[in-house]
Amino acid sequence: MSEPIYVIGHQQPDTDTICSALAYARLKREQGADVVPARTGALNPETQFVVDRWGVEIPVLLDDAAGEQVILVDHNEYSQTVTGAENAEIVEIIDHHRIGDIETSEPILFRNEPVGSTATILTQLFDDANETIPTQTAGLLLSGILSDTVVLRSPTTTERDRAAATRLADIVDVDYEAYGKELLTQKSKVGEKSPREMVLSDFKEFDFDGQQVGIGQIETVEPSVVLDQQDAVLETMDDVATERDYAVFLLLVTDLLEEDSTALVAGPEVEPVEKGLDTTFTDREAFLPGVMSRKKQVVPLLEDAFGANSA
Amino acid sequence: MSEPIYVIGHQQPDTDTICSALAYARLKREQGADVVPARTGALNPETQFVVDRWGVEIPVLLDDAAGEQVILVDHNEYSQTVTGAENAEIVEIIDHHRIGDIETSEPILFRNEPVGSTATILTQLFDDANETIPTQTAGLLLSGILSDTVVLRSPTTTERDRAAATRLADIVDVDYEAYGKELLTQKSKVGEKSPREMVLSDFKEFDFDGQQVGIGQIETVEPSVVLDQQDAVLETMDDVATERDYAVFLLLVTDLLEEDSTALVAGPEVEPVEKGLDTTFTDREAFLPGVMSRKKQVVPLLEDAFGANSA
Repeated sequence: MSEPIYVIGHQQPDTDTICSALAYARLKREQGADVVPARTGALNPETQFVVDRWGVEIPVLLDDAAGEQVILVDHNEYSQTVTGAENAEIVEIIDHHRIGDIETSEPILFRNEPVGSTATILTQLFDDANETIPTQTAGLLLSGILSDTVVLRSPTTTERDRAAATRLADIVDVDYEAYGKELLTQKSKVGEKSPREMVLSDFKEFDFDGQQVGIGQIETVEPSVVLDQQDAVLETMDDVATERDYAVFLLLVTDLLEEDSTALVAGPEVEPVEKGLDTTFTDREAFLPGVMSRKKQVVPLLEDAFGANSA
Repeated sequence: MSEPIYVIGHQQPDTDTICSALAYARLKREQGADVVPARTGALNPETQFVVDRWGVEIPVLLDDAAGEQVILVDHNEYSQTVTGAENAEIVEIIDHHRIGDIETSEPILFRNEPVGSTATILTQLFDDANETIPTQTAGLLLSGILSDTVVLRSPTTTERDRAAATRLADIVDVDYEAYGKELLTQKSKVGEKSPREMVLSDFKEFDFDGQQVGIGQIETVEPSVVLDQQDAVLETMDDVATERDYAVFLLLVTDLLEEDSTALVAGPEVEPVEKGLDTTFTDREAFLPGVMSRKKQVVPLLEDAFGANSA
């Protein structure tokens, strides 16, 4: 009796991370491997909606990966992965982010591609393996693509994401624009959350040249719901930055309709953020026209700015 | 007028590294990109033979990559790459080794697969792109596969390497066993070299938990040519270990016909090597039955042993 391999996405799981874990486990099982989809934490409302919509069981909660074999999807950095990953055997990685700090002793499959979602790469992997994509899986993959690319509107969107979305929408027979709007509505349900839930629900931690930086993002069609309670939000950000000893905690409140972001900031190292993003914070707030993607329009700039700062 | 992108393999280039750089540059040029094949140093006799055999120009020598855009093939570690890579923009990586320490700020294509040669992955990339493999390129890719897998005999060899070699041999219309033996003969031309050229001609440097470890390999059908001058070889290894401040310098003298290796050792940290390889050195020599692959049968064991040592 051997242990299964877990496919797991990043902390604070989002729709692309959960759908990619489910889809890749499905593909690997079709190929005869004992692979189980897993998650690091609770689902957000959008992802819960997706899982219900396509009638799949939610992945198992994996508290600690120490001693396990794991496949990482939708991330490749220790600061974003499951607890215990340092003592797990990482056997594969499928991702679409910057190349992070994970090293292995053996050669493994690591497929990182600069496309809009991990689900886009998984669609390709089904094709590469000559496996038919089951309807349920097609629904999940479509959801991952539409969620991560803001219905193909984010600047991270590529032709391959468009082609995959069109094809998956055909398989499941839905209008992807209409279905995408349903997803956005779910994603925008921020009003019911506490400030702490809001700022941490889509949150990533980075190690920039030895400094810990937290970057949260709230994607919504109603930014005013967040910005109207700005004092409470900033107070929560201060608490989190202090608790976790962050150099800086940046929160992007992204307006999905106007396609821009308002940034809020906490922590001592505001200057490299201003330099990196070429902006000035007034009362800890800055407007970032055209910024929709944390990954593409914020992370590289901050990494460079923090690197230059310490050099 | 824009600068070209350089495709470059590891230091102490071998046949897979050079052929992969040539083949990938060809594919990218077919696709309209301004990409130039490059190398970090002189060709070994086997690779020179291959380049002559298929009538291609040798890649340009790139002394310093600082400020350039580079695609890395056949390696993904700073300790093995071109000088100045820390200050270059790494735009893609195609490899078949363990995952190393390279990080990027932007998402890039990083395709690492656990197969016997980078040339095997490149064969796949031509197929993925629906590009016909030109005869010359097929000859180079076949050479990369046969060289890195010791004519499909190394334990790193996979079904995909076999399938690719068979298909490429069809394209160029050669008997791959016969051609492979020609390559082995070239690879074995160690007798004409100085001890220093011998121990450094196929050499890789690793950072294991902060300790610098050099691992050289001489693959030959006549190990006696090396072992008969063991004193001179060990003296050279001592010099190199001292010059470069290595914790250990391990040299594998691999018998391509018997499919085993004799290891020689220099530097202070012999104990973790003995632990890792489960062997004992007598007069700085140990016999390693069945060991042919540095990558698969030596590097992971030493990495673990040096990690446990420092923990």
